[in-house]
Amino acid sequence: MPYYIGDVIRKAEDLIARTPGQFAGSNIDVFTGKAVESIDTEGGRVKTSDGAAVPYDNLVIATGNRAIRPDIPGAYLPGVFVLKDLSDAIAIKRWLVEKGCRRAVIVGAGFIGVELSEGFRRRGLETTMLHRGRLPVARFDDELSRAVRDELVKNGVSFVERASVTAVEGGSGDELRVVTEDREYAADIVVFGVGVKPETTLAREAGIAIGPSGAVKVNFSQRTNREEIYAVGDCAEAYHRVRKDWVNIPLGDIANKQGRVAGANLGGSPRTFPGIVGGQSFKVFGLEAAATGIDEREALTCGYSPATHLMWGTFRTPTLEGEANMGIKLVADRSTGRLLGAQGISNVGAVSRINTLSVCLWTAMTLDEIGYLDLAYSPPYGGAWDIIHRAAQRLLRDL
Amino acid sequence: MPYYIGDVIRKAEDLIARTPGQFAGSNIDVFTGKAVESIDTEGGRVKTSDGAAVPYDNLVIATGNRAIRPDIPGAYLPGVFVLKDLSDAIAIKRWLVEKGCRRAVIVGAGFIGVELSEGFRRRGLETTMLHRGRLPVARFDDELSRAVRDELVKNGVSFVERASVTAVEGGSGDELRVVTEDREYAADIVVFGVGVKPETTLAREAGIAIGPSGAVKVNFSQRTNREEIYAVGDCAEAYHRVRKDWVNIPLGDIANKQGRVAGANLGGSPRTFPGIVGGQSFKVFGLEAAATGIDEREALTCGYSPATHLMWGTFRTPTLEGEANMGIKLVADRSTGRLLGAQGISNVGAVSRINTLSVCLWTAMTLDEIGYLDLAYSPPYGGAWDIIHRAAQRLLRDL
Repeated sequence: MPYYIGDVIRKAEDLIARTPGQFAGSNIDVFTGKAVESIDTEGGRVKTSDGAAVPYDNLVIATGNRAIRPDIPGAYLPGVFVLKDLSDAIAIKRWLVEKGCRRAVIVGAGFIGVELSEGFRRRGLETTMLHRGRLPVARFDDELSRAVRDELVKNGVSFVERASVTAVEGGSGDELRVVTEDREYAADIVVFGVGVKPETTLAREAGIAIGPSGAVKVNFSQRTNREEIYAVGDCAEAYHRVRKDWVNIPLGDIANKQGRVAGANLGGSPRTFPGIVGGQSFKVFGLEAAATGIDEREALTCGYSPATHLMWGTFRTPTLEGEANMGIKLVADRSTGRLLGAQGISNVGAVSRINTLSVCLWTAMTLDEIGYLDLAYSPPYGGAWDIIHRAAQRLLRDL
Repeated sequence: MPYYIGDVIRKAEDLIARTPGQFAGSNIDVFTGKAVESIDTEGGRVKTSDGAAVPYDNLVIATGNRAIRPDIPGAYLPGVFVLKDLSDAIAIKRWLVEKGCRRAVIVGAGFIGVELSEGFRRRGLETTMLHRGRLPVARFDDELSRAVRDELVKNGVSFVERASVTAVEGGSGDELRVVTEDREYAADIVVFGVGVKPETTLAREAGIAIGPSGAVKVNFSQRTNREEIYAVGDCAEAYHRVRKDWVNIPLGDIANKQGRVAGANLGGSPRTFPGIVGGQSFKVFGLEAAATGIDEREALTCGYSPATHLMWGTFRTPTLEGEANMGIKLVADRSTGRLLGAQGISNVGAVSRINTLSVCLWTAMTLDEIGYLDLAYSPPYGGAWDIIHRAAQRLLRDL
């Protein structure tokens, strides 16, 4: 596929430049290149980097999160990146082109690292992934994580387990060397994908309450402990309907919904945010990976009595649309029979199953009920008993 | 793709022949080639075609349904088929091969006819579909049915609307002529796909209650009006959770579930069948078609106050996995805000959305809640607001 990187960069930069203009003629003033330095909650003003004080009746904190750069030498060298927002993406792409990169090192094997490795491989880069753990995508069961690792390796990613990065060093010219406890890896570009932290400095300094997750504490209308101040998105907590607890899960769909809830309340249409169940998906080359709810460790922490079963199987007639091979793991509570979580990896169909099961979690459905759900059966897409029926019935026998 | 029709036929025939043997060594006696002619409910016996009387304590009626052959001359000529069960499929395939068929006429444009047309076109047959209505797959909104028709035509099916078939005539050799009010269509094979009727003769003659749908009336444990007699599958009714009424929807997944419920009750493990929501899907060449719940006509009949909206859109980032174009129609009740039904047509993703919405119907969810469901978002598979979020929010504005 053609990949006009120059065009992509120009389009993205153009998008950023045009943003303020899109609000021209409305009542909305948009300022860019102007950092908020503090919130004066008593005076109802925010102070900006150019010394101005902007008054507010209501304030929405949407400061997002920041990608973590580990506290090691060389973490900020030119050619060393994180991937959090559009400007990071632009910077990475520009570096790839300008330096004619051929070797990439990705530090971390979460879903950002995994997705990025596909992008690098598609551009033909030698790609090495250094991971401090044994298997990628920690949220998943080891058996499913192994399938992800095998898919990475099959597609030419050199996956290094138990790699502890201690420094990045500049080499001759633009060459970088990523140093681990065991050896060094030469690279033309290095990207850290080792997690994110909610960006709460402004809120914290203004005395706004922070929840146990480290993100801004909000209620169902997205208000903070100060009624006139809202917080939304990656910097804020969200109610988890399975944990029955407040968490910080930085995903764009949650941020969008919270933003709309805050906006509705600000605009005078009361609305509450109904919470999340932890649905998430990503693509790793030829595989769909998706998960929802909680795993057995989290379930124990919450006070549930988890039982789990992991099943491999197909769910459609292979003669029609080709094989569908899926690993699906369910977690349920022994005391109530309710589903608590699900994970799926498949060449096709995993996201679909996890979405269906997310609605089951949303309504606190039992395995017994899931085993008899009416789904849109036909052989190219599912069996008379779909794999989620079978997985639910199978785990139910263990409860 | 290679298509070893001889192998397929042999495999199917072998499967049928082996069925009795699979129960050898169990307590189950399987008789084939032996028709039950009547049920003696007072004596607790069934009478078979060979004059035997088989006693029972419990009886399960699983007589299925029969495909309708219209009452017109020539409906039973050699080369004229219906497609209901494995033996029909074998007979059709055998005829295709033995007669070297090149021209097929399908009468009817329901999902059986549509699926069959794809099979015929894959074998390279000139395929004509004669339909008494204007558009195929009556369950769907006209706008979506048009997309199905266009896909048929695009793939070489000659679709004839408003065709009223009055006779099938034998011609020279094996040639058949399908006669409509307007003209004649020459064919080497003719298949009627004009609907099915529950096969209830035995039950009816034994005085077992038949429901208003024409199928055997059952309760939640699959018992008929006689406690010792069960009925399951296409010959029986099922509780429709949206209609709150008993219906006959002949689909294999419902039959499987009802069979298991009856079996559990017979085996001493009480179980009830939780009902259906009307989920259904089929493939038409490059399109997924799926529906669930009820449409606005059915909704009116039930006493709901339906509102509908049909939206076309995409739901994933086209640069990653290619375009996804989907038409989605939602039906909701104005008085409660609840979803009542959904239909989707897409090159990809329709079945997935309809399954998710089937769970929403199962739990009587409102549009407002659907608009904020937590799904497993990532750009290759969906948007931060998925098309089902957007469709629900859009229809909600009309309520």
